[in-house]
Amino acid sequence: MEPISRLVSRLNEQNIDAALVSDPNAIRYFTGTRFSPGERLLALVVKQDGSFRLFINQLFPYAGSVPTCWYSDAQDGVALLCQDLEGTVAVDKSFPARFLLRLQEIKPELKLVLGTVIDEVKAIKTAAEQEKMIHASQVNDTVMAQVAKRIAVGKSEAALRDEIDEIFRQVSQGNSFDTIVAYGDHAADPHGVPGERTLKAGEAVVVDMGCMVDGYCSDMTRTFFVGENTEKELYEIVRQANLAGIAAVKPGIPFKEIDLAARKVIEEAGYGAYFIHRLGHGIGMEVHEPFDVSATDETLVREGMCFSIEPGIYIPGRVGIRIEDLVCVTKDGCRVLNSYPKDKEVL
Amino acid sequence: MEPISRLVSRLNEQNIDAALVSDPNAIRYFTGTRFSPGERLLALVVKQDGSFRLFINQLFPYAGSVPTCWYSDAQDGVALLCQDLEGTVAVDKSFPARFLLRLQEIKPELKLVLGTVIDEVKAIKTAAEQEKMIHASQVNDTVMAQVAKRIAVGKSEAALRDEIDEIFRQVSQGNSFDTIVAYGDHAADPHGVPGERTLKAGEAVVVDMGCMVDGYCSDMTRTFFVGENTEKELYEIVRQANLAGIAAVKPGIPFKEIDLAARKVIEEAGYGAYFIHRLGHGIGMEVHEPFDVSATDETLVREGMCFSIEPGIYIPGRVGIRIEDLVCVTKDGCRVLNSYPKDKEVL
Repeated sequence: MEPISRLVSRLNEQNIDAALVSDPNAIRYFTGTRFSPGERLLALVVKQDGSFRLFINQLFPYAGSVPTCWYSDAQDGVALLCQDLEGTVAVDKSFPARFLLRLQEIKPELKLVLGTVIDEVKAIKTAAEQEKMIHASQVNDTVMAQVAKRIAVGKSEAALRDEIDEIFRQVSQGNSFDTIVAYGDHAADPHGVPGERTLKAGEAVVVDMGCMVDGYCSDMTRTFFVGENTEKELYEIVRQANLAGIAAVKPGIPFKEIDLAARKVIEEAGYGAYFIHRLGHGIGMEVHEPFDVSATDETLVREGMCFSIEPGIYIPGRVGIRIEDLVCVTKDGCRVLNSYPKDKEVL
Repeated sequence: MEPISRLVSRLNEQNIDAALVSDPNAIRYFTGTRFSPGERLLALVVKQDGSFRLFINQLFPYAGSVPTCWYSDAQDGVALLCQDLEGTVAVDKSFPARFLLRLQEIKPELKLVLGTVIDEVKAIKTAAEQEKMIHASQVNDTVMAQVAKRIAVGKSEAALRDEIDEIFRQVSQGNSFDTIVAYGDHAADPHGVPGERTLKAGEAVVVDMGCMVDGYCSDMTRTFFVGENTEKELYEIVRQANLAGIAAVKPGIPFKEIDLAARKVIEEAGYGAYFIHRLGHGIGMEVHEPFDVSATDETLVREGMCFSIEPGIYIPGRVGIRIEDLVCVTKDGCRVLNSYPKDKEVL
């Protein structure tokens, strides 16, 4: 079934009159076209009866066949949008205040709810999308094997990062995000930017990387050591947390249960205060998509959703360790999309 | 007076209890630091009593001295934010629905208004900022003079664009936006992407370009012809509209009056249907900033605001012509920041 039809089904199930899609990535997913309207209003209204219409400024002509309401710079696009809306409206997560407050002003009788339903349709990957996700992670696995061979004492973080990005350019559509290479205590910053620091023997090497293949993203992290794993205890805790997170995945539970399953391993080992981020994030055509695998996300996990499982321990001034795989939810568990080993960390 | 103090003054004038700043560009303006929090909550709350506090996820540490409320992935950041808010709150234009609807759910008694007041403070350039805007446009003028010499029959749009961008790299911090070079009927698309099309004698050449100098943007458009101006009537109408727009600028009038003054010239000449965009846009540290010089923007023009005046006529299948200058509002009119001539269009 086409994306819009699936959204219409969900609107009917949840008795929502219309969805107001505004995220350009979601609009690309539903219409096949990526628009970049800058600060101007862009919205796709999809109704319970199956009808849909794109609202876009006439400055952005396109060749698609989506029914369209063109407005000009001289018109109030939100007022036009309001004419199409009634009852309960699911509003996309990124719809900005300048339009949302105006919409509430013009039509205060609308019941606006957060458009989780829009994200759910996009988050549940079709069989064809799952194949692409699997393929992108297979490519990422292959590149990780090459990267492991290139890690060397004396090489800088930035140099290794450049080598990774060059390989991605050769074997994929390029990076799905800025590659992270961080050594030793620099790895204690989960978002560390690779620098001129060079590797010493025994230091942790965190490599967090991903590429785009056929429009879909991969994303994986491994932590290596040259010569000797000098953080065996921490490494094993993070690895067990990764496995516990993966083991917890199944349809029907809230996302927060997966986060808690992995977090429990780290907390019970006494390092809970050093696992400072959510366990994971949705992924697909974008590297960060809804939903959060976090202690606060109560969305229910469904078959076909893809997300990361990436526990870490970050001890300032000492070290950071993270192990990340992507998973795709199956009928009774999940398929792990990465096969690069997690127990061959010593090079 | 520092940016935050100016915002506090405006909150007191307008009897608004607090401003909720969320646009990363605005937060950079008020705090001096640019954050990239991705999908996570980032907000600066500034109150009428002069106090202010940044709300940011602990994953984004920074070295600044702004009072900060750190939250973690396991906390509801919006709930923390709500504890700081009371009464009437000016909400930044880009604050997304996922936080705004949650805020309304937690604290429905708040009166939320659009944060125009935030944009006004940033839009009114200080004397030091005005100097930087003037300088950036002087550099742009100089480059335009070089560009005029490089326009040649047989040269492709993309080749000329590449030459412009190379000059910008040499004399500035680089482009402030993607350079537009469009020939003949291709120029009928105001956002045309330069391609392999080569120039013929007598064809219109639209060059819309700008660079960054000392953190501030320039933006100017000129339309040229090699050998002969084959669209003299249209060119003169657009030039008169540009001059009429500039002549209309003064403090105290709504932005829409400037748009209407220029639009009237084109409408009275019978080409109103071919002027398909707003007259201009605010500019400063970003190339597009509030406010719109458009038929719908009723914000009042104030001394120190900088924006573009860029009328155009676009006739599909035939030609596009646009002439754009930046202006800075003075006590009783405006200073035009570009001095490159508008009556030397034949090369």
